[in-house]
Amino acid sequence: MKVYLDNAATTPIAQPVIEVMKEAMEINYGNPSSIHSMGRNARSLVESSRKTVAEILKASAGEIFFTSSATESNNMAIHRSIVDLGVRRIISSPTEHPCVLNTLKAICVERNDVDVQFLSVDAYGRIDTNELNHLLESSDIKTLVSIMHGNNEIGTMIDLDKVSQICDNHNALLHCDTVQTIGKFDLDLSKTKVSFLSGSGHKIYGPKGIGIIYINNDNMTKAMINGGGQERQLRSGTENIYGIAGFAKALSLMVEEREQQLGQIMELRNYFKSEAPKYVSDIQYNGNQDDLFLPHILSISIPKTMKTDLIMFNLDIYGICASAGSACSSGAEKDSHVLEAINAPSDRKTIRFSFSHHNTKDEILHTLKTLADVSS
Amino acid sequence: MKVYLDNAATTPIAQPVIEVMKEAMEINYGNPSSIHSMGRNARSLVESSRKTVAEILKASAGEIFFTSSATESNNMAIHRSIVDLGVRRIISSPTEHPCVLNTLKAICVERNDVDVQFLSVDAYGRIDTNELNHLLESSDIKTLVSIMHGNNEIGTMIDLDKVSQICDNHNALLHCDTVQTIGKFDLDLSKTKVSFLSGSGHKIYGPKGIGIIYINNDNMTKAMINGGGQERQLRSGTENIYGIAGFAKALSLMVEEREQQLGQIMELRNYFKSEAPKYVSDIQYNGNQDDLFLPHILSISIPKTMKTDLIMFNLDIYGICASAGSACSSGAEKDSHVLEAINAPSDRKTIRFSFSHHNTKDEILHTLKTLADVSS
Repeated sequence: MKVYLDNAATTPIAQPVIEVMKEAMEINYGNPSSIHSMGRNARSLVESSRKTVAEILKASAGEIFFTSSATESNNMAIHRSIVDLGVRRIISSPTEHPCVLNTLKAICVERNDVDVQFLSVDAYGRIDTNELNHLLESSDIKTLVSIMHGNNEIGTMIDLDKVSQICDNHNALLHCDTVQTIGKFDLDLSKTKVSFLSGSGHKIYGPKGIGIIYINNDNMTKAMINGGGQERQLRSGTENIYGIAGFAKALSLMVEEREQQLGQIMELRNYFKSEAPKYVSDIQYNGNQDDLFLPHILSISIPKTMKTDLIMFNLDIYGICASAGSACSSGAEKDSHVLEAINAPSDRKTIRFSFSHHNTKDEILHTLKTLADVSS
Repeated sequence: MKVYLDNAATTPIAQPVIEVMKEAMEINYGNPSSIHSMGRNARSLVESSRKTVAEILKASAGEIFFTSSATESNNMAIHRSIVDLGVRRIISSPTEHPCVLNTLKAICVERNDVDVQFLSVDAYGRIDTNELNHLLESSDIKTLVSIMHGNNEIGTMIDLDKVSQICDNHNALLHCDTVQTIGKFDLDLSKTKVSFLSGSGHKIYGPKGIGIIYINNDNMTKAMINGGGQERQLRSGTENIYGIAGFAKALSLMVEEREQQLGQIMELRNYFKSEAPKYVSDIQYNGNQDDLFLPHILSISIPKTMKTDLIMFNLDIYGICASAGSACSSGAEKDSHVLEAINAPSDRKTIRFSFSHHNTKDEILHTLKTLADVSS
């Protein structure tokens, strides 16, 4: 039995998305910058995709830019807010994705005019909005707050409306990495004020190699990647038209099927948690479990034993795909910066299971039984 | 009759490339950074693709990195050679692609410690290697020479071995944009010393949204896009595995079929040039025509008349896809910086036709007849 429980790392592409991409690959091969009919057809696909994304996020089409990944989008938001908007302080959290943390690290090495501050997080990975408020109050320096919507390792979410309100009250820019939430939660950018927002195709049953950045019209930047002036001068390079069409289709499908998928996923999650104690003793859960959590991410921990060192490999042998922390690392199991930030006890082994609507209760049961076998 | 003569802007994806990509999209959906079987399958596809590319370029696999486009690669080479390798002078040419010229422009705006110099070009768009030699001799400042292998608008090529030798003699780094030549010409990086080289999938019957950068082991840089540490820390973001597999397949096919394709394209080019005077009076050709030219690019000029203002639109109405200059612009017809650099007479209208092995003599004839109709 093959059980894919690593949907926070990446998802299979939905068949209707593959169809859209195949059609674009086979027929729509013009360069969107060409003014002839082949070019215009490609341009039309790009622009209708942009419109779809904008409508879903309740943004204007002029605020949506296609990039190669959320990683690129997040790099861009941070770099360009410094260069173009005069940001001189960045407030972030220690549980951000490495594409934010390592960008901040590179900035600290390469420039000496930007102050980087980190909020503390509690044992559930929650930031303290009072601390954010206090930090913003303490200085008038132009500030970017970079906080992810939902954590990719432990699933803890922020109250985005509240964080947005605090940032707005202090004229701080807000960058939100929504890789784990875009399409899955209702993001209404006409109501929730966000300066920069990023998303990725391959977490929502869309393709890899495509992402978006939303840049609010009030804080438009210049490009990080310069060239032929594509994406209205904001992101050059011939457009990845299949990826773009695939992203828009995946996001639409996600929104259409959101309620149903969420119901299925909550059922699987609850089933896992209710059955787990029957198979695995002393199982605990990392991250917020009560409110503001990502239903598709379940980070568990069990007591470390001789056997837990090889647990990921053994789960794999039994056909179960899961992660130690996140997938975005060198391929070697590294200590997780998120678990470190929440002071996870060092005598426990963490495994992240992440669900999709394709999973079944049988798969969950098989996983729990296998987990029992390989951990004790 | 639909005639696609804009193959320097972008090419249709070859069917075997689509097959490889479809298979990857349907089956191989793991995240290459995941350590389980699905992840390892994806990793394997990425690494075998890298090996294919490295073998073709006679580079080591550790020198090949996948990016989202040659535009990204070129931005990266220029930026990182400054930040990581201490480059403080860049010598380029006025006929480079906008992704080089606009990156240099941004650098001049954003930093004041890098000197940018431009070589002159003659009426054929040729650089003067003596001038390059002289400039390099004139200063010991750490220098990057950024020159494209073959020009995308007028097809003029450089003698890469000679330029490489001159740079090497003066310890200058050499960045070469090979978007129009990779796969089409034999590039042997074990013999020709290049520091950075870029290529793009969609110019060689591969996908859009994927490019490579070759970085010579002797001048390895750090990342421009930071994050999860993919591509051996050099380019983060979950790998575009379909694009990567598609790129490798497209490059392999191109190399396999190179001789045959080149023969067909030279025949079409010669046919165009021999037939043209029968249909269009006073036709001239931009760029080098005798040696060191790209066979697939034929930039023509005809005397401007009232009718030539709308000639691109009228060609399009008759089903002929061509470009005024290059495709990489806003969609509006702009004055070409390349034509300006070669002092092209302002009373002549330029049209770039670019061929593929899919074109036929019938299509060329139809194009010439239509050109006659819409220009006089």
